[in-house]
Amino acid sequence: MNNFSFYVPTKIWFGKGQISHLSELSESGSRVLLVYGGGSIKRLGIYSEAMTILKSAGLEVFELSGVEPNPRVEKAREGIALCRANGIDMLLAIGGGSVIDTAKSIAAGVCYDGDVWELIEDSSKIMAALPIYTVLTLSATGSEMNKNAVLSDLGRSVKASMSSDLLKPKMSICDPTYTFTVSRRQTAAGTADMISHTFENYFSPIRDSYLSSRFSEAILKTCIKYGPIALAEPDNYEARANLMWASTNAINGIAKVGAEVGWCCHPIEHELSAYYDVNHGEGLAIIIPRWMRHILSDATAWKFAEYGRNVWDLEGGDMEVAETAIARTEEFFYDVMGLPKTLGELDIGEDKIDLMAANAAPSLKKAFVPLDKSDVAAILRACL
Amino acid sequence: MNNFSFYVPTKIWFGKGQISHLSELSESGSRVLLVYGGGSIKRLGIYSEAMTILKSAGLEVFELSGVEPNPRVEKAREGIALCRANGIDMLLAIGGGSVIDTAKSIAAGVCYDGDVWELIEDSSKIMAALPIYTVLTLSATGSEMNKNAVLSDLGRSVKASMSSDLLKPKMSICDPTYTFTVSRRQTAAGTADMISHTFENYFSPIRDSYLSSRFSEAILKTCIKYGPIALAEPDNYEARANLMWASTNAINGIAKVGAEVGWCCHPIEHELSAYYDVNHGEGLAIIIPRWMRHILSDATAWKFAEYGRNVWDLEGGDMEVAETAIARTEEFFYDVMGLPKTLGELDIGEDKIDLMAANAAPSLKKAFVPLDKSDVAAILRACL
Repeated sequence: MNNFSFYVPTKIWFGKGQISHLSELSESGSRVLLVYGGGSIKRLGIYSEAMTILKSAGLEVFELSGVEPNPRVEKAREGIALCRANGIDMLLAIGGGSVIDTAKSIAAGVCYDGDVWELIEDSSKIMAALPIYTVLTLSATGSEMNKNAVLSDLGRSVKASMSSDLLKPKMSICDPTYTFTVSRRQTAAGTADMISHTFENYFSPIRDSYLSSRFSEAILKTCIKYGPIALAEPDNYEARANLMWASTNAINGIAKVGAEVGWCCHPIEHELSAYYDVNHGEGLAIIIPRWMRHILSDATAWKFAEYGRNVWDLEGGDMEVAETAIARTEEFFYDVMGLPKTLGELDIGEDKIDLMAANAAPSLKKAFVPLDKSDVAAILRACL
Repeated sequence: MNNFSFYVPTKIWFGKGQISHLSELSESGSRVLLVYGGGSIKRLGIYSEAMTILKSAGLEVFELSGVEPNPRVEKAREGIALCRANGIDMLLAIGGGSVIDTAKSIAAGVCYDGDVWELIEDSSKIMAALPIYTVLTLSATGSEMNKNAVLSDLGRSVKASMSSDLLKPKMSICDPTYTFTVSRRQTAAGTADMISHTFENYFSPIRDSYLSSRFSEAILKTCIKYGPIALAEPDNYEARANLMWASTNAINGIAKVGAEVGWCCHPIEHELSAYYDVNHGEGLAIIIPRWMRHILSDATAWKFAEYGRNVWDLEGGDMEVAETAIARTEEFFYDVMGLPKTLGELDIGEDKIDLMAANAAPSLKKAFVPLDKSDVAAILRACL
């Protein structure tokens, strides 16, 4: 088991009606920048409820709306300027990962002299950040309880992240009822995202981080059990609640400590998003099984077999169980959750594969099975 | 799933050599009260290593030693006086749960005008506490990452706890090598304690807190796998590390959220400790299987069956699996871990059973199966 640190100071308020705790924002000052996407939080009544609570707590609210999926650095720059012009004390993100990551980037960018993209290039430059609060409306990225913020500069076809303990939200409100209206497509994509977060460290060469592996399997089983229920019954509280809490725990550190390893599927998917603005979870669902087949060997079959036995209740020899487990994963993504199976379905062809492979490869050297440019190209070609 | 809050701001440094992070104490001031038990931290070299690090960080160290198991309120009072006399800025506990709980009580007591026992009687009186740091040397209570402190007033035969977010340590250093020298007896008792912490909320009427149940099973499997290895090979790092991390997670909230319920075995055991100064984990190991048999019924068999299937890999109908799971639990405690099986082995007889049952009963009303005085007496008689 590797040495590790574990530090998640975010206070979670989980469940129906927890939005009332927004009154606690007054502990961080009086001027809030509310960050959100489009009109859905208005249609759902979350916006007006939040406004009422914030105003009764004596807070003055400024707004930045229009955050898109694969959030753009330009929107973060706009928010930073707003904060500076209005003496903002804290950020409140109401939305999913894109909204939260935009708020995090603003929180750090306000406290930094240069351009916010420099913090992506070198996170050690993050020396301070405004307090960040979130109200989660989508179960997927886990940004509500972690230190990462992913931004895209689509003009330069780059999607990358900044990371700092200072970006961990001070408080996150996780009300599963806010996800009742999440579409089938986003429910499936979010489930693929949380499964991928779990896989990225579960498939690790560290064999003795037993508790983290069992925690990971607990999260995977939760996704596999409740993803289909949420598709069939969008307002099933049990399903939405378990998925929401699974998404948070998939990437707050609890399931990886002691076994941390370089990630593979996320860096590859970030290339797809950067060049084609692909839905993140859909991109992951296409890549994951091809990555699994690419790295499966006599040397790695033990871990796939552990996955197959403990998550899918399979029996048999390591390689047999490993292969069946990968087949079950495909079946789950494509047949059960209805996620896209090929890049062709997203109108993505052969032409940028070598370019994307070259971009992704440098960050894949410390993975469970280290990958080079030709490995990534082979995985992406298998996705066509 | 119940609404819940989850908040664990303690920074954990886990692994070999992490004691170097004691230098971070200088963030909280310059005057430290070091709290510890007997000579073992000196024999093991932890004391001198800690002193060297603290002094190079410019910290002035005062000492309170002699903390005993089932820590006494008198020792907390002594520490509070020491803090006031010396303008102490923070507490550093080096030891197991008794030492940490004493430090927590001191940290809260220093900031309170009345006697520290009043904080046990009413934790809402805890309005402030000095920062608490810990170096863990025993895997058991989980006090290194939770809000509880248990104290005993043996003169009045009372063992009880105070609880506050303010008592959550700021930082805890968890180095599994510090537990290599823990005796067979304490290793077994500590394992029973963490299993009991997990059981207390796992056996809950809340059926839909799926992820918390799976997390609980992950912890239980870790205890069952590594407890015996730690007995057979006391310096097995993998075993000691997994047990240490399991003990922390058994009671930091991660395994219970959404399914919280009133505890049973701990309140009953606290009576044994209060009247007979029993080893806490040993007392629990005696009580747990009798409590299980007492509450097993057609109405509760589903949860015992879940335990049997997911932790012990049993197959069959609910009641059959439930009964076998309880038998396996007994076998594990008594045959595998060598824990005492009866109160008789601890020279405890019939005479105070009704008194202890009357004391414990009031706190057992909100349990999975609520217990009254006659239930507790029956459970304790079955332990004879």
